[in-house]
Amino acid sequence: METSEVAALKSLLAKQPVAALATLHGGEPAVSMVPFAMLSSGIGFVIHVSRLATHTYDMLDNPAVALLVTASLAEAHSPLALPRASIQGQARQCLPESPGYLEARSAYLAKLPDAEELFSFPDFSLFIVEPKSIRYVAGFGRAVSLTPQRMRAVLGAEP
Amino acid sequence: METSEVAALKSLLAKQPVAALATLHGGEPAVSMVPFAMLSSGIGFVIHVSRLATHTYDMLDNPAVALLVTASLAEAHSPLALPRASIQGQARQCLPESPGYLEARSAYLAKLPDAEELFSFPDFSLFIVEPKSIRYVAGFGRAVSLTPQRMRAVLGAEP
Repeated sequence: METSEVAALKSLLAKQPVAALATLHGGEPAVSMVPFAMLSSGIGFVIHVSRLATHTYDMLDNPAVALLVTASLAEAHSPLALPRASIQGQARQCLPESPGYLEARSAYLAKLPDAEELFSFPDFSLFIVEPKSIRYVAGFGRAVSLTPQRMRAVLGAEP
Repeated sequence: METSEVAALKSLLAKQPVAALATLHGGEPAVSMVPFAMLSSGIGFVIHVSRLATHTYDMLDNPAVALLVTASLAEAHSPLALPRASIQGQARQCLPESPGYLEARSAYLAKLPDAEELFSFPDFSLFIVEPKSIRYVAGFGRAVSLTPQRMRAVLGAEP
């Protein structure tokens, strides 16, 4: 993975405020939008979801999930070449008493300050998606896959 | 569903060039980016995918898929309130000899003219995703679900 691609992937994950979250829903794939932030270690995606949404039950039933983060349309000459990152991972609920809760909440609110009010809603809770693999497509036909070790080195490093 | 929401959903599906496609990959959810267009009937999503991408095998193995179309960031005051449509559906390959192939290809290229060259690549083929249900979230806490009958009435009607 070239230095320019590392920088582009980190920038994509830092800048884009929303991801597509795929869950297993009654044995079939489902996909919904979730605002997200990265843990500062670079290897956890923080999401804040409501029990009123089916994706929350899906994750509690089956923690295998996937996330897709896509660049804004303005960032490519063609929609076919939009940079994007596909993540396979495991979701775990992060309750206020869980280790890492304050760090996760703080990372989330630093990126998504509008969400602060939702932390007082009883139906909302944090989940952390721990990636097993990330596939970064930098443009048409240009893709690289990252293992957890490589992710830690690439995403956990200082910007 | 209010008239303004119908118009907003139709506009979202007409304008956004890409969707997140969730497939079942070895029993787990996976999600990738796909450019898409709507059939003029309004009840089929046309995608054009490569055999070099795992989502193509996933759809051939298990046609249950989901799509998410999200509005551009500029279209909401907060990323938490971005309008989006989540579609559950069934994917079927649409080969050049299949009924409806020319209509599907034409709808796809009218929206995504850059893709014309890809139709000469032997690894690419069209799939049509027939929706079973659409959930449209117009903003924070404002969601409506559409059955196939309602979709046909809403999306198939003239703009």
